[in-house]
Amino acid sequence: MTPAEFHVYDTTLRDGAQREGISYSVADKLAIARLLDELGVGFIEGGWPGALPSDTEFFARAADELRLKHATLVAFGATRKPGTVVTEDPQVAALLDSRAPAWCLVAKSDVRHVTRALRTTPQENLAMIADTVGYGVSQGRRVFLDCEHFFDGYAADPDYAVAVVETGFAAGADVVVLCDTNGGMLPSGVTRVVTELRARLGGDPRLGIHCQDDTACAVANTVSAVEAGVMHIQGTANGYGERPGNADLFACLGNLACKLGMDVLPGDGLAHLTRVSHAVAEIANLAPDAHQAYVGHAAFAHKAGLHASAIKVDPQLYNHIDPARVGNDMRILVTEMAGRASIELKAREMGLDLAGHPDATGRIVTRVKELESRGWSFEAADASFELLVKDELATGLPRHFALDSYRVIVEHLGDGTVVSEATVKLRVGRRRIIATAEGNGPVNALDSALRQALSSHYPQLSEVSLADYKVRILPGGTGTDAVTRVLVESTDGAREWTTVGVHDNVVEASWHALADALVYRLERRT
Amino acid sequence: MTPAEFHVYDTTLRDGAQREGISYSVADKLAIARLLDELGVGFIEGGWPGALPSDTEFFARAADELRLKHATLVAFGATRKPGTVVTEDPQVAALLDSRAPAWCLVAKSDVRHVTRALRTTPQENLAMIADTVGYGVSQGRRVFLDCEHFFDGYAADPDYAVAVVETGFAAGADVVVLCDTNGGMLPSGVTRVVTELRARLGGDPRLGIHCQDDTACAVANTVSAVEAGVMHIQGTANGYGERPGNADLFACLGNLACKLGMDVLPGDGLAHLTRVSHAVAEIANLAPDAHQAYVGHAAFAHKAGLHASAIKVDPQLYNHIDPARVGNDMRILVTEMAGRASIELKAREMGLDLAGHPDATGRIVTRVKELESRGWSFEAADASFELLVKDELATGLPRHFALDSYRVIVEHLGDGTVVSEATVKLRVGRRRIIATAEGNGPVNALDSALRQALSSHYPQLSEVSLADYKVRILPGGTGTDAVTRVLVESTDGAREWTTVGVHDNVVEASWHALADALVYRLERRT
Repeated sequence: MTPAEFHVYDTTLRDGAQREGISYSVADKLAIARLLDELGVGFIEGGWPGALPSDTEFFARAADELRLKHATLVAFGATRKPGTVVTEDPQVAALLDSRAPAWCLVAKSDVRHVTRALRTTPQENLAMIADTVGYGVSQGRRVFLDCEHFFDGYAADPDYAVAVVETGFAAGADVVVLCDTNGGMLPSGVTRVVTELRARLGGDPRLGIHCQDDTACAVANTVSAVEAGVMHIQGTANGYGERPGNADLFACLGNLACKLGMDVLPGDGLAHLTRVSHAVAEIANLAPDAHQAYVGHAAFAHKAGLHASAIKVDPQLYNHIDPARVGNDMRILVTEMAGRASIELKAREMGLDLAGHPDATGRIVTRVKELESRGWSFEAADASFELLVKDELATGLPRHFALDSYRVIVEHLGDGTVVSEATVKLRVGRRRIIATAEGNGPVNALDSALRQALSSHYPQLSEVSLADYKVRILPGGTGTDAVTRVLVESTDGAREWTTVGVHDNVVEASWHALADALVYRLERRT
Repeated sequence: MTPAEFHVYDTTLRDGAQREGISYSVADKLAIARLLDELGVGFIEGGWPGALPSDTEFFARAADELRLKHATLVAFGATRKPGTVVTEDPQVAALLDSRAPAWCLVAKSDVRHVTRALRTTPQENLAMIADTVGYGVSQGRRVFLDCEHFFDGYAADPDYAVAVVETGFAAGADVVVLCDTNGGMLPSGVTRVVTELRARLGGDPRLGIHCQDDTACAVANTVSAVEAGVMHIQGTANGYGERPGNADLFACLGNLACKLGMDVLPGDGLAHLTRVSHAVAEIANLAPDAHQAYVGHAAFAHKAGLHASAIKVDPQLYNHIDPARVGNDMRILVTEMAGRASIELKAREMGLDLAGHPDATGRIVTRVKELESRGWSFEAADASFELLVKDELATGLPRHFALDSYRVIVEHLGDGTVVSEATVKLRVGRRRIIATAEGNGPVNALDSALRQALSSHYPQLSEVSLADYKVRILPGGTGTDAVTRVLVESTDGAREWTTVGVHDNVVEASWHALADALVYRLERRT
């Protein structure tokens, strides 16, 4: 099966943007469209021109700026309003103005929604569909018809739901998409309805599927629909969408490619799944979901000490696919439950061989367990773990600098201005250095003061910058206070690394992570 | 179908604890077991006695302290070691010592795992199963057999996989559980294998299902197995587990009850789904997943302005079930995309009627949009939203206090001690107040100084305490700096409320959220 016959349709930029907390700029949307095109999806639904000003602007800029290699851009819209003429509907005019070569028109297919929400007659709804699809086709557009609430509609009045589908095809729709808008379906129901519908329609019409995740079955429902003969799937990057979300397009693609053997993406698209997933999360300003199927950071991560020793024997016995197929890696987690085997494997990932160092390995295991019981987490902070291992292997890292003291001041002044200032006092060798810097916050000021203090001795640190900063408050165990865990991601342009600090004071926790980040960089060249 | 015939089996405390980042104390495990029992699950797998010291301790304390109403406690273990006598296996002895009335024994059912990982013969593996199951039964224990890697094993050598199942039943196992250990299955495959296996076994043996979520189909696979005749499901709270996780027991229960009409929990258990889900997340120290099916905070949340107006007409047209069935609520989100309809609905949720106030509503919509474009989020901060609405309705809230200035100092002293101190200068009416307090961090010090300054005028604030504090760094738009968003959850023992602050300085952002939290409390009684 080739991608030319089967449609991979992405609606991250329209339906996916309904997710709580997401708000894309036009530049964000253009960046996501480029990523999806690199992945090789066939269709990118860019938004609803006319409904949102930023969507109108997106299509204007997309027509001029986007040079898509694989994907066709699709504008989303609705059928004309009841009792109006399609050529006079401003929303339909906005679709034309968008210059998008394809339209996806949403239509009601549940008769209850027609009468109660749309407040028109079932007959007029069919006329609206015929008119609007026909108009798009007459204007040279490729038209897809999204049948909203199709499965609920089919359950309530199957004849009417089928009439909607038939009207769409008769008017020239390229695909009629069955939408589980409320997300209430299970795979068995999707299989049954698609099978019955195909039998009623006869021939081989191209049906599509659009699932929401309200039963936690959106991916399964999508795959089941494909197994039942659907040739067009709609999903979103990382499953972003309203309520529990849409079908995660990446899990759908992983399943179709790796489980059903379908050739769903051109070239080596599948190998970009993990990268594109994380990049979209970054743009959406959401933390990537570590536990996401196929692409999550933990998707192939093994924790149990039990497994870790067996994995050395034959990794493929413990992974459902080779992680490299989707651009992901197997990881061994350093955790409280991990024993020596996990720590050795993890160190080997970093190019450090612990095989000949049983004493150091024992000390590392003890130290990791002790620190993790106090809230440190090395799972996300590979650089801090590497420093700890090197420290034990070498019986102490060289001390690049020694802190005497620091002081951070934040003031909200009488005029409303807020100022932050940090002073760091440290020693490099025998030389004592005092540096003071301002920043837009206490951690930024501390970071600046530390770099300034070290810059003359270690000029290579000038390339290092803070890429991300995360703070988490961890409730303490019984009878202990909460602690703050800080993760700092640093970059020197070529590489990124993450360090961790834990303390009941957020500034001190940040200090640990910031200092580790610079020491890690200094260790790499010495 | 009654709960007595159908098994709901929870493995949150054993398999779920494999999730990256989870580390339960014995007290945590006892608390989770009580919650699961309140929900009404039939079986609670408490851990692997003998393998982890804390699991051994859990069973000792559980036998003495837990008074379970519904659930039977299960100890997890493995079949005896190859070439040994079952009565001399220390791991089997630990199962007996646990005093748990039921055992779940894991056995290899994939012949490749038998030879390569276990390094024994297929025949010896069957003997290990027969011996260990038989021994448990002879000791009066109810025995379940978990067939690890069953589906991979069935694909590689169906006859051997079936022999494992038959051996388990012949030795007296109450249930033989088919485990998709690597999580690679799709619903169609699960349906096919369960159907074939039942035909081969004949009669009506009680089969179980245990799914991992590596294809994002764990819930669907579990439900499909039940539809194919399985009578025992294993899952974990919120789907916690290794890699992408286990089948989310709550979504499975929601689907079985609401979609298949099964009576899976005793009494009104289903209505506790949301509460128990959030409580377990709290104990696991993980943020509840807002987008989780059935129980997520956003599971029934509607964002689109389009839908919000239609929802007023008939909410049930837009929800796949009535959220109250699983103890959840419908929510209307306040967002950039929301129009007047959403804001009016949201205000009504809070008991504020905007119907007669078109001007104020317009100002609220404008202010919310402007603030959200700068990084504020009212979706999670209902209390801040309520203050904003009240402020516009009353054309200005009464000013309970006015800040002149504050100063926060954090010092890392020469002896390694870290101290934090805050001074707040404010006015209540005409009186100027200056208060200084120490804290274990800058925000805690600021919070203490603010309360101290206000305490003599507003004694009711003494009941208020900070329940949670979350920090998120938001990258700014193009050409702007990152900003920090702080969410503060406060409680007075009876109610909890959340406020938000945004600024490029974390201390100033915290100040906004802390001040709002206290003003919200003062507004409630005046």
